[in-house]
Amino acid sequence: MPHTLKLDSPSIFIGKQGNGVISFGSGQPDLPPPKEAIEGIDIRKDLRYGLIQGERSLREALSKEYPNSTAENFVITNGASEALDLIFRAWGKGKVLLPRPYYYSYPPIIKLAGMEPVYTDLVGGRIDLDDFKKKIKKCRAVLINSPSNPTGRIELIETLKEIERITSKLGVYVVSDEVYKDLIYERENYHIQGDHVITVNSFSKTYAMCGVRVGYLWSSDQSIADKVIELKTHTSMNTNLVGQDMALRAMAAPREYILNQQQIWRGRRDLIYKGISELGFEVWKPEGAFYILPKCKNAREFLTTLYCDYKVIAYLGEWFGAPDHIRLSYALDAKEIEEGLGRITEAMKKVRCL
Amino acid sequence: MPHTLKLDSPSIFIGKQGNGVISFGSGQPDLPPPKEAIEGIDIRKDLRYGLIQGERSLREALSKEYPNSTAENFVITNGASEALDLIFRAWGKGKVLLPRPYYYSYPPIIKLAGMEPVYTDLVGGRIDLDDFKKKIKKCRAVLINSPSNPTGRIELIETLKEIERITSKLGVYVVSDEVYKDLIYERENYHIQGDHVITVNSFSKTYAMCGVRVGYLWSSDQSIADKVIELKTHTSMNTNLVGQDMALRAMAAPREYILNQQQIWRGRRDLIYKGISELGFEVWKPEGAFYILPKCKNAREFLTTLYCDYKVIAYLGEWFGAPDHIRLSYALDAKEIEEGLGRITEAMKKVRCL
Repeated sequence: MPHTLKLDSPSIFIGKQGNGVISFGSGQPDLPPPKEAIEGIDIRKDLRYGLIQGERSLREALSKEYPNSTAENFVITNGASEALDLIFRAWGKGKVLLPRPYYYSYPPIIKLAGMEPVYTDLVGGRIDLDDFKKKIKKCRAVLINSPSNPTGRIELIETLKEIERITSKLGVYVVSDEVYKDLIYERENYHIQGDHVITVNSFSKTYAMCGVRVGYLWSSDQSIADKVIELKTHTSMNTNLVGQDMALRAMAAPREYILNQQQIWRGRRDLIYKGISELGFEVWKPEGAFYILPKCKNAREFLTTLYCDYKVIAYLGEWFGAPDHIRLSYALDAKEIEEGLGRITEAMKKVRCL
Repeated sequence: MPHTLKLDSPSIFIGKQGNGVISFGSGQPDLPPPKEAIEGIDIRKDLRYGLIQGERSLREALSKEYPNSTAENFVITNGASEALDLIFRAWGKGKVLLPRPYYYSYPPIIKLAGMEPVYTDLVGGRIDLDDFKKKIKKCRAVLINSPSNPTGRIELIETLKEIERITSKLGVYVVSDEVYKDLIYERENYHIQGDHVITVNSFSKTYAMCGVRVGYLWSSDQSIADKVIELKTHTSMNTNLVGQDMALRAMAAPREYILNQQQIWRGRRDLIYKGISELGFEVWKPEGAFYILPKCKNAREFLTTLYCDYKVIAYLGEWFGAPDHIRLSYALDAKEIEEGLGRITEAMKKVRCL
């Protein structure tokens, strides 16, 4: 293959799988969704518009997972992406504090909404509270993503509680993107608390149903939900009804479904972390999600060699605000991870990346 | 019921049906979707992300309905709403010419995108080409909706061809919202032609599946599709896969499904047009869609009386840029339309509306 990759964005690798390619690229579970979500589903015959806020049955089921909540606190959206997009559009101006490295869609959706991202660099893969305190004062909101895509790191519960206190005192909103909440290897998820908190979540990662596009936001501030519903009335109407039916059914899957998945992900995490470390890469140990972000010199050249000579897809750290890094998603079975690590070992002989 | 309606937007009537209410409010088919869309559907077990642009099979099927098209000319969206939202966001500035009365979501999504609506008032329910020519020069695009919600009127084919020529010459885009294209009583639909045309469409009205939220845009200008796909990557990812499967299956419904529906709609149109005219309202005869927009004095008072005393829901013309009008949707069976007309007759004795 020719060495001419235009490494502008992850979209370059879309549709490039199969044919012996090992992809550490795409960030989605490869494991199957729970059978409850799919089997025996009876498509409703009444396909008229649903409530813009989302089906009451689904919101009521969700309210049992959030302490002191009712169905009114939720808005069901086309994945977590739309929830984030609508939240920032509802504000439309001001600054948003963003820990860096960040999920690559965050800066564009913040800017598209007319807001301005302000960055705080992670230290040791975690929020640096000193820098956070300095920068948060001028912001309208902070966007937290723990576990993080692309670092795989989680924030300490003490840090999250400190963020709660600081933001509450300053009257700054916290948008907490917790789409990987069920994929933490080290502890239970911790919901940030308070009237100034908007939690964003999804059925995509927990139940391996990314393509169904059902996510939601939770807020105890009724004005947030109202404003988002008003926008959604114009921009997309209700979230697709069959997807919402599937999401509700997925919630009936036994807890073992999630626990089994966690065990598989933990095994993969151990495998790739050990492999990447032993190859000499400097890297933070992933504690959740399914990403690892090793430091890598000559990252563009290394990625090009990986793909063109060894049929291995990896993402450029630059896309996530992490130059001189590459991001590997380990949503692959152990055998493929091992094969991929072997090819990476070979590619390291051609490009100086340590 | 108390006479205290806060008539700010249609959302006041959400969930107010049943219990003897006759609703001329909501704009969606009450007829069933084709059985092809629903029966025997096998939910795919691989629910990973789909292509942002939409499933290739669906886009290929659509390309057969658009002359000289390929699958690349389409982007599948969460209903026509999202298609419109993304098109205007892709531009982000400039003026959009909007025939008035307009669908009530048009001005907010144009403004949300950072663009400015400029209005041209319909004359006799049709675009006034003289005014159009004057105002189009300073615009980046014009948004056409034929058949129109809320007027039920269609544009003459000669007018559409003249708009093609004028805009092509000036380099102005035409966004043609044709969601009611299969609901024209007077003639076949006419696709506006040209590289400067973006057609927006949906499965919602043709196949009575509004709640499934599958729409699309068509453009022969690759840069439009590319920009929309780039935005959608950040704002909502792929359109829900099960909905796309259902949309593809709906397209296999025989032509009779659509023709039968048209016949029912035409009968309802005749009934309500005759009834409303005989009551003395000044009104344009609907030629498509399922709306009628009679002139009405004291519209707020009349609507309040209709709802509070007679359990009849109608929408305020004001919401559609038509003060002193009310909008009635006739997505009801003939018996309900007759009952509704009877109640309107009674309400007219209480409020002077002619």
